[in-house]
Amino acid sequence: MAVNDNAPIEITAFRWVPEFAQGVVRDLRARWALEEAGLDYRVRLLDQQRPPEYLLEQPFDQVPILRDGEVRIFESGAIAQYIGEKSEALLPRDPQSKYRAIQWTYAALNSVEPALMNLLLIDLFFTGEEWAKLRRPGAEEFARLKLKRVSDWLGDKQWLEGDRFSIGDLLMITVLRFLRHTNLVAEFPNLADFVRRGEARPAFQRALNDQLATYKQHEPEGEAA
Amino acid sequence: MAVNDNAPIEITAFRWVPEFAQGVVRDLRARWALEEAGLDYRVRLLDQQRPPEYLLEQPFDQVPILRDGEVRIFESGAIAQYIGEKSEALLPRDPQSKYRAIQWTYAALNSVEPALMNLLLIDLFFTGEEWAKLRRPGAEEFARLKLKRVSDWLGDKQWLEGDRFSIGDLLMITVLRFLRHTNLVAEFPNLADFVRRGEARPAFQRALNDQLATYKQHEPEGEAA
Repeated sequence: MAVNDNAPIEITAFRWVPEFAQGVVRDLRARWALEEAGLDYRVRLLDQQRPPEYLLEQPFDQVPILRDGEVRIFESGAIAQYIGEKSEALLPRDPQSKYRAIQWTYAALNSVEPALMNLLLIDLFFTGEEWAKLRRPGAEEFARLKLKRVSDWLGDKQWLEGDRFSIGDLLMITVLRFLRHTNLVAEFPNLADFVRRGEARPAFQRALNDQLATYKQHEPEGEAA
Repeated sequence: MAVNDNAPIEITAFRWVPEFAQGVVRDLRARWALEEAGLDYRVRLLDQQRPPEYLLEQPFDQVPILRDGEVRIFESGAIAQYIGEKSEALLPRDPQSKYRAIQWTYAALNSVEPALMNLLLIDLFFTGEEWAKLRRPGAEEFARLKLKRVSDWLGDKQWLEGDRFSIGDLLMITVLRFLRHTNLVAEFPNLADFVRRGEARPAFQRALNDQLATYKQHEPEGEAA
């Protein structure tokens, strides 16, 4: 429900990131899932330059990690699922619906995200490199194909499996947001509506606002927009 | 335990694929998990050119799909987890061990596979393209960094979480096999040993042999090595 320093659940997040990354860093997924589940959480803030010992907790040097009593896990997909197990609002209980939701988390993270992240990296990190210029049209076409696959599946359904929101939608929407610097998602109106429906959820709004408020609070001097 | 046309569990797989893909197509993950769990399965074979209606079952046009009674799911990570729920040999029951195993499936598929697949595509699909030549050194370095992260974590442990094999190891080993056309994994002896330990498991051997036997049986004329 809210960031609460006394909550039993802890996640890690960055104190501050540059503007292009604000609103898409992966702790947003954990925050959103926790908000949907109605669970308070506390946040352990990290500098962008993590201490070397963070690798002992998170071998890929990323956020978020989740701690809850004995449980310490990383990977936003696993964290969303762990939170989902605490809340039927995120993860249905009958095997078919449960595994359809879980399946869409893997689809978001393995069948869709790599193609979109590839384009994002070309546009934001490798701009100006010769290979990136030559590769961009093909990378965009591949990202578009992935969007088409999801759009064709979604059709006029509200969520990926119909009327019921799940961790699968949550992950897919955060993945689609990686293309917000382009107009690609807008080429598929049902997909753009799907993202807007997700972003309109009060839980998403709270999660996003809390992530952005932290960055605002820790903004380095001279970085104000 | 074996391919059995009367088994209740069905997976999809390709009738035949070119040699560079033999032994790494993702139905291997489902076969391996089923073998570890001691479950028979039947196989629905598909031509490489799938019928358009396959997209209604698998929106990304890939294998495998798993059917088990009412349950119909795709994404090899979700399938491994579904099979894991049937067998403590693949997925422990206490929450911390369970979610550590699940976390490694996401790590394999999202934190490691994209960098390795990127290099594989450069080497096997985009050979000769100018951007691929320019990009290859950076792509190799990024793949190597991911391998280093896993190698550093693994240390001298037998499996990713210690003495106990899980779906996390299963997924990670199949991901590392995507680099078999290079010597990159061999640069990290503990990682190479980890892959060999996985490949030496009788369940892996049965899964691989069954996948390869199908290709052998359906080899197009003129394709024999």
